[in-house]
This record gives sequence, structure tokens and C-alpha cells, in this order.
Amino acid sequence: MISAESLRESSRLLSEARRPLLAIHVAPDGDAIGSLLSMGWALLAQGKSPTLACQDALPLRFAFLPGFEKVVQEPPPGPYDLLIVLDCSDLSRIGQVDRAIGRDIPVLNIDHHVTNTRFGTVDLVAEDAVSTTHLLYHLFRHLHQPLDERIATCLLTGLVTDTRGFRTANVTPEVLRIAVELMEAGAPLTTITRNGLDRRPLAALRLWGAGLARLQSADGIVWTTLPLSVQQTIGHDGYGDAGLANLLISAEEAHVAVVFTEQPDGDIEVGFRAVPGFDVSRIALRLGGGGHALAAGCRVPGPLEKAQRQVLALLREDLARQREQSDGGRHPQPE
Amino acid sequence: MISAESLRESSRLLSEARRPLLAIHVAPDGDAIGSLLSMGWALLAQGKSPTLACQDALPLRFAFLPGFEKVVQEPPPGPYDLLIVLDCSDLSRIGQVDRAIGRDIPVLNIDHHVTNTRFGTVDLVAEDAVSTTHLLYHLFRHLHQPLDERIATCLLTGLVTDTRGFRTANVTPEVLRIAVELMEAGAPLTTITRNGLDRRPLAALRLWGAGLARLQSADGIVWTTLPLSVQQTIGHDGYGDAGLANLLISAEEAHVAVVFTEQPDGDIEVGFRAVPGFDVSRIALRLGGGGHALAAGCRVPGPLEKAQRQVLALLREDLARQREQSDGGRHPQPE
Repeated sequence: MISAESLRESSRLLSEARRPLLAIHVAPDGDAIGSLLSMGWALLAQGKSPTLACQDALPLRFAFLPGFEKVVQEPPPGPYDLLIVLDCSDLSRIGQVDRAIGRDIPVLNIDHHVTNTRFGTVDLVAEDAVSTTHLLYHLFRHLHQPLDERIATCLLTGLVTDTRGFRTANVTPEVLRIAVELMEAGAPLTTITRNGLDRRPLAALRLWGAGLARLQSADGIVWTTLPLSVQQTIGHDGYGDAGLANLLISAEEAHVAVVFTEQPDGDIEVGFRAVPGFDVSRIALRLGGGGHALAAGCRVPGPLEKAQRQVLALLREDLARQREQSDGGRHPQPE
Repeated sequence: MISAESLRESSRLLSEARRPLLAIHVAPDGDAIGSLLSMGWALLAQGKSPTLACQDALPLRFAFLPGFEKVVQEPPPGPYDLLIVLDCSDLSRIGQVDRAIGRDIPVLNIDHHVTNTRFGTVDLVAEDAVSTTHLLYHLFRHLHQPLDERIATCLLTGLVTDTRGFRTANVTPEVLRIAVELMEAGAPLTTITRNGLDRRPLAALRLWGAGLARLQSADGIVWTTLPLSVQQTIGHDGYGDAGLANLLISAEEAHVAVVFTEQPDGDIEVGFRAVPGFDVSRIALRLGGGGHALAAGCRVPGPLEKAQRQVLALLREDLARQREQSDGGRHPQPE
């Protein structure tokens, strides 16, 4: 998964740092937060003085994670001697946290996104890791960092949320074995799953209801829209699709699912999901976004109707090409 | 979990049988089907001639399971020398399959429901097993039955579906370790999860949309109704709530979730879910149904409005009593 050299190089950068700044992406998810906090605890244990930053406030359902309250949105100006960027496919994903960075400090880039641009002084990047915390698990083993209950809890949170509870196609026996080890170190799987995956405001369920009521389906694509007015009526605007795309891809009729979420600024957030055999990172990347083969996203200009029409036309084309390329035109079938 | 004696007694019954009849409950789920098929393969490997029966047709999304096509709805009259009842809290749950049973044949009752009535000649029953296949895993180890790919696939299907993908509170490191062993024996976790949990007709999503549009919430209870007319308009009548209750209990506001599904015969199927700290098997049992603390169900007479009113009144009372009993009136909080 990771080369011995990148582990050694990461280890060297970390050993030379005294005051590292740790940053994760805007709109942080469970893997980003779990990575940030577990790395923070490991660095503290090694006698460093880490600063943990995220431009956006962390979702409160992750407040059970040890160290949650230590994360700042606007880090003090430093000076820092190392920037550790976690779970970001490119550096711009950390948002305004970059204001705190001095010139010429080295960057340790730890990530598992297939679209990672290798922006680090050292890149600890592996696309076959199921989560960034999966990479950190291996880094901590390399560093002989003991996995206490706090670190184990944060690491397992990334494993669980990025695999949607061990549901993604990349979950191997090794991943489950790591989960066993982390549970035995004290990580509470049920609490992590409930808070990380199975807990949402009633308003999110109402938003899903509105989205499902507008469901459309054609050519293996299942999609829906969430107009801003609908979000505002429900009182759930500005929180994205609340996971609705994951629900849509569960339809037996879907090869690809898409949710178009109208933003307050008029842009349209587009969330793509695919079943194994299809790749939606291609179209997301082409439209200026990123992600994985089975889950990707981008942001396009509105209005909603136009964005929907254009993205679906591109998607249909791209899917037709994918079906042609795979096995001489035979459609890949959902498992 | 299971007493050595019940394992020995089960083993004795099995060794004496030549032509066992295996039966599971009506409206079979992944654990029932996984139990039936894994037990079938194990008995075949031991040179027996098992007959596998289920009154209702098996859902097609389980067609990937080896042996799926061998299950009959109306077993031939026999004679059989052992009835093995899997995943049933009482004998009536096997429905009309009981017509094929001769008098005086012994019954092996293998189940993990807290409401099991111990109806067997031998009862291999353990409430702390996460699934009936979890019990079978231990029985097979006791019998020195090798776990080939077919048996492993069927066993993992029960583990995955009854824990909703390792999400329930009873998932211990031991359960995940068994999952690792079954994956290493060839069980395809992703296929099992997708087919067992994450695959549903578009019509089921539309049904959820209709249910979510009618969502109500008060006193820690989140509930909705699925009138028959709504089910018929969508074209999804007769399939229950399609898992909607599991979705409702994800609401942060919910201690208990209830879905009232109107049946073609006018009865109302009531599905209960609870967060850890509450017990809905009590009310389900009181209303003639059964289940576990966190997931239970029953069937009550219609009409829908009246059933809803009466069940909610009883539930409110019961929840108030549970809150009183737990910790001197302090409400148990969702994790």
C-alpha cells in the first residue's frame, strides 16, 4: 500500500518538527476529523506542540471524539515548522487556513484520494487505503506509536465513515482486522457508527423525503434535485444533500446516482455515486471537482435546471463511453 | 454464549438424522436464508439428505447465495426424521411448512431472538448471538465442519444483515473476527452488503419518500404511516415498510421510531425501533408480536388512524415507565 521510502520520509519530517500545523479540508467529514485528531494525539505523545485547524466548524455529531474541542477555525499566525495536510486531494481544500502558513515550511501530504495532486514536500498518498486514518494506522505502526483508546477511536472513525460502515468494495479482511485491533484498544464501534453514519437531524430526513419525491430515472441514472426554496422551507439549507446520493445509489435500477443541490450563492453542488464497474471521478474532475471512482462531486454554475440538463448530458455521454470501453460494449452490471 | 450441553445435544440430534427438514420463518430475511442454506450445505457435507423449506418465496436479491434455488415453498410429505427450525421465535412462524411434518419427530430449535419460546426437543438458543448464523458458526466449529466458500458466504450474510452491516450495539470484536475468518474463506463482503442491505427497487425509495413526507415527531417518538392507497399508487404494496423504520430511528430527535403499514387485509403492521437504552420488544410482545430490544414488530387490527392512536398511547405510557425505571427518572440519552 505505502512505500517504505514514503514512510521513512514522513517519519523524518515529523521527527524534525516541533510546532506542526495540522489542516483538513473544508466541509470536514469523519475521516478528515478522525485523521486530524488521531495525528494530534500522536504528536502530543511525541512531545510536539501541534495546532489543529479546520476552516469550517466541525459537525457536532463528532463531539464524542477526544480532542474535538481543541480544533480551531483560525489558527494563530505561528510560526510553524511543518504543515501536515490530511485527507485533501489538493492544497486549496484547506481553505483559509493557508493564511497562517509561513513561507518555506515543509508540507506533509497524507491522503488516499485518487485525485491527489502530490503537492507535498513528502507525499504519503495511497489510493488503495480505505481512509486517511487507514494510512495513519500504518504510519503509527511505523513510528511505534502505541494505539491508546483516544487514538484508536479517532482512527476507527475514519475507517467506518469512509467505508460507510465497511460497505465499500475496498474493504478487505485486513481492514476488518485493523477494526478488531482498534476495538480491542477501546474504540466504541457502535458510538462511532451511530454518530458518524446513522445520526441526522429530522430536517435531514425531511430533506430526503423532498428529494425522493422528485426522483427521476433513465438510462441507468437515478437523480434528483434539491432547490434552495425546498431546503429553506424544511430549514436544512447549507448542509448539502445530507447523504441523499448514497441512498439513491441503492436503487436496483441505478448505475449512477446524482443529486443536484442548489446553493445560497446560486451555484449547484453536484454529488455523484456509482456502482462498482462505473467511474464518476472522471466527470467530476472534468467539471472541476474530484473524488473516487464510486463517489465524487463538483460545483457548477446555476441555474438548477440548466446545470441539471448539462451535467446529465455529459454524464450520459461519459457512461456510454464507459460501457463501450468495458468488455466490448457489454454493460457492467451492478453486483 | 451457548452452553456446551446444548451444543452436545444438538450434535446428537443431527448425528441421528438422515432426512432432516429445515424450515425458516415467513417473510424470510438475510439471516433466515443464510441460516437455512449454510445448514443445508453442512448437512449435505455430512452425507445427509436435507430438504430446505420456506413458505414464502425468497427475495430475489439473495439469489447470489449458493443453494438459493434449492429451497422449496411446499416440501414433499416426507417422511422426515428431524425438523430443524432456524431463526424462529416460535413454531408458528414457519407457517404452512408445518403440514409436511410427521408426528413425533424431534425438533431442533436454533434461534437468537429474546422472545424465543423454547419449543424444541433441543433448543440451541442464545440471545447474545448477533444472528442465527452466529450460532451456526459455533455449532459448525463444534461439529468440526470445515467452512468452505459456500458455507462462509451464507454465514456472513446472516451476520451482516442482522447487524445492519456491523451497526448494532451487540457487535463485539469477536463478531468482526468471525467476519474476517469468513471473508478469508471466500465470503464476498461487498456483494453480501450490497444485496443484503443496500439494494432496493426504486419503488422502495419512492415509498420512503412518501413515508418521510408524512413524518411526525413528539415526546422522543418519531413515526409515520404508509396507507395502502399510497403503497398501491407507488406500486410497492405488500412488501412492508421496506426498511423505513431503520431510517426513522436515525433521527437525532428519536428515542423510538414507529412505522404503521396498512395491509391489504386491513390489518396494520407496526415496526418499532429504539436507540440503545430503550426496549421496544416489551410493547411488541404485549401487542402479540415479538423481536429484540432495539427492533421489534407486531400486527394490530385497523383502521390505520385508530391503530396509530392506540399504539402511540400505549407506547408513550411504556416509554414513560422505562424512563422512570432507568436511573430514577433521568432519561436515557441516545449515544
